[in-house]
Amino acid sequence: MSDPLRLGIAGLGTVGAGVVKIVRQKAAMLETRSGRRIEVVAVSARNRDKDRGVSLTQYAWEDDPVTLATRDDVDIYIELMGGSDGPAKASVEAALKAGKDVVTANKALLAHHGQALAELAEANGAVLRFEAAVAGGIPCIKALTEGLAGNDITRVMGVMNGTCNYILTRMEATGQGYNALFDEADKLGFLEADPNLDVGGIDAGHKLALLSSIAFGTQVDFDAVELEGIQRVSIDDIRQAADMGYRIKLLGVARMTGRGLEQSMAPCLVPANSALGQLEGGTNMVVIEGDQVGQVVLRGAGAGEGPTASAVMGDVMDIARGLRMTTFGQPAATLEKSVAAQAAVAAPYYLRMGLVDKPGALAKVATALGEAGISINRMRQYDHVNESAPVLIVTHKTTRAALDDALARMSTTGVISDTPVALRIEQV
Amino acid sequence: MSDPLRLGIAGLGTVGAGVVKIVRQKAAMLETRSGRRIEVVAVSARNRDKDRGVSLTQYAWEDDPVTLATRDDVDIYIELMGGSDGPAKASVEAALKAGKDVVTANKALLAHHGQALAELAEANGAVLRFEAAVAGGIPCIKALTEGLAGNDITRVMGVMNGTCNYILTRMEATGQGYNALFDEADKLGFLEADPNLDVGGIDAGHKLALLSSIAFGTQVDFDAVELEGIQRVSIDDIRQAADMGYRIKLLGVARMTGRGLEQSMAPCLVPANSALGQLEGGTNMVVIEGDQVGQVVLRGAGAGEGPTASAVMGDVMDIARGLRMTTFGQPAATLEKSVAAQAAVAAPYYLRMGLVDKPGALAKVATALGEAGISINRMRQYDHVNESAPVLIVTHKTTRAALDDALARMSTTGVISDTPVALRIEQV
Repeated sequence: MSDPLRLGIAGLGTVGAGVVKIVRQKAAMLETRSGRRIEVVAVSARNRDKDRGVSLTQYAWEDDPVTLATRDDVDIYIELMGGSDGPAKASVEAALKAGKDVVTANKALLAHHGQALAELAEANGAVLRFEAAVAGGIPCIKALTEGLAGNDITRVMGVMNGTCNYILTRMEATGQGYNALFDEADKLGFLEADPNLDVGGIDAGHKLALLSSIAFGTQVDFDAVELEGIQRVSIDDIRQAADMGYRIKLLGVARMTGRGLEQSMAPCLVPANSALGQLEGGTNMVVIEGDQVGQVVLRGAGAGEGPTASAVMGDVMDIARGLRMTTFGQPAATLEKSVAAQAAVAAPYYLRMGLVDKPGALAKVATALGEAGISINRMRQYDHVNESAPVLIVTHKTTRAALDDALARMSTTGVISDTPVALRIEQV
Repeated sequence: MSDPLRLGIAGLGTVGAGVVKIVRQKAAMLETRSGRRIEVVAVSARNRDKDRGVSLTQYAWEDDPVTLATRDDVDIYIELMGGSDGPAKASVEAALKAGKDVVTANKALLAHHGQALAELAEANGAVLRFEAAVAGGIPCIKALTEGLAGNDITRVMGVMNGTCNYILTRMEATGQGYNALFDEADKLGFLEADPNLDVGGIDAGHKLALLSSIAFGTQVDFDAVELEGIQRVSIDDIRQAADMGYRIKLLGVARMTGRGLEQSMAPCLVPANSALGQLEGGTNMVVIEGDQVGQVVLRGAGAGEGPTASAVMGDVMDIARGLRMTTFGQPAATLEKSVAAQAAVAAPYYLRMGLVDKPGALAKVATALGEAGISINRMRQYDHVNESAPVLIVTHKTTRAALDDALARMSTTGVISDTPVALRIEQV
């Protein structure tokens, strides 16, 4: 019989407690499947006395996660504290330097320091895995890194922030505006301490940066993700999109273009009858497109104790079975620095703006688009509300650069009453 | 640099040719990702002279796949010939006995001999992988075996025969009957040489037996799969189902019940607005439910050169990376013999039958159901057609055993003009 595989867990929120429960309750099954006994030996959290629904008295307690991470009796350090720096980074680095394998659910840490940490892991013969950091329980990192390893990946897309998808789908279902649903999500405890991580698209952008590194063999480059939150999506946008057969999703899209790597996390219109369009509430979806496999769609719970703990345990089981993968699907030294290309691929756009009540206002907007080389697919103007007339425009395919040119031209016309909303229509 | 990983490929249909193309065209990428050069060294097929769209002259040719499988210069034997016995079985056995790793797309071989072959692989320190055997390009074997290894699996479902799904969705779209669409599928080359493998549910049943072995840690038991084809699904059934908000799919369902392992591959009604209900044409879907992760849905192409070759290459890349998994997710010796439980879980059923034109006929049918302990949710009788009156019944939840009892009682009433169609309504 092999030696047991000993876990040290830092961070005992719902996910940490969930991992402890699985290890304890499924000990026999996990040993049968992996050939090794898996046990928790030590834990760490900020508050020792909190009731976590599971007894921790049998495990050693460490106040300092760095001490936990480097204990002689810890084989895998499981980091579930979160945060891109601070104790999470320090303890993961300490663990890797000590040759410990690391499993983490920390998207911010990897989005900011993934390359350095992957190099550190390899230099010390350790593995660093992060299935739980992206799309909760969906084994999308494994699918992309391993299952689809024979493909040139052409595009990766994802709806990977359940809170945003909850707000957007509830706006459509209830007819309430963004602010009301933001408050509802807050009351339900769906928002991060800093809500901008959710509604500003940052959390989902972290996840996209990790997926695109694997997909395209590039170093994680979160700073190059074009980020736009859902704060400016109005109930009017949702209704207008629905009228045209679309739904609005906070959609991540990564693709390699002739001009570089495009990564965007922004509200987009997707066909209402597509798998992405039909995604409701807190569920996540990852869409992977490869030159051989075509389109693979993965759907599942994006958060919560069970799904996230399931993903952590998937990584733990890999290590228990001796399946030792590189962090981003190939040796860290072979990951290339990408060139960032913002929205290089042409797409149709949805535009909404308010026009002041002046003769010729609409013509000026149309002229601005024309001067930027953008042709109009549909345009609708509605009755004035508070001296501003809502105008909706769907363009034919254009680049983001041309669109920005048009928006700049419009801003000088003096007929636009507020900053236009511009949402890409993503072909899925 | 590691030694190259040398492939011997037997079976050079579209999938085999696809694998050759990937290995040749993506050599640099595969080497970067896996750390090993991957090359084809020898091939085998029935017809040496056929044009396969890819030059094979640089590879050694073997007429006998067993000779190919045991060549000294072959590290992985890739079996793409098909068939549960004959050369496929002989060559896979020979390869494993020689300590060669084996990758196959052969569902029939594994459904019939999976346990023995898994044991043989382990006895010889070889791995035997079969991602391409189930649901084409969808990395569902990997998701279930590895990604979700921390879960007790509660149910696995799948629409895994594209030809059947094509026929059923085309019946609904065109209003044509089964026979017309069978002919259409035949003309399009969608049918196996023995069409019963497709429309009889056998091919999909093979796949289900493999999934349920992994899901429940049991020895593959294809003979215990309750099989029913789509031949008796009529356009009336499809219309009636649609009226009630359902669509009919050839659905595989496996779950462990208190009475044993239930495996069925049969036409079922699923909600039209569910992911399974919305699956169109040749696309496949696998739904995995775990106690931790909840429901994970995987969708993708179920067949074709690219998708199937993608799955083969996923297995090859695992081996190239040194990721050596057991065949069914745990050591073959620990897989238990399952007890077969046919439809032990209660479900509502859809029934269609023809009644002869006699007073009291409908009452006799209702009485038969009542005597079997089955209560009726809805019942409709239509005008007589050719002296037979179509009757549709949706029952409340009942067991298959009770339903069979009711059907037996009905058959003695003398009022049923043909064998009733009985389809389970699966809650998804």
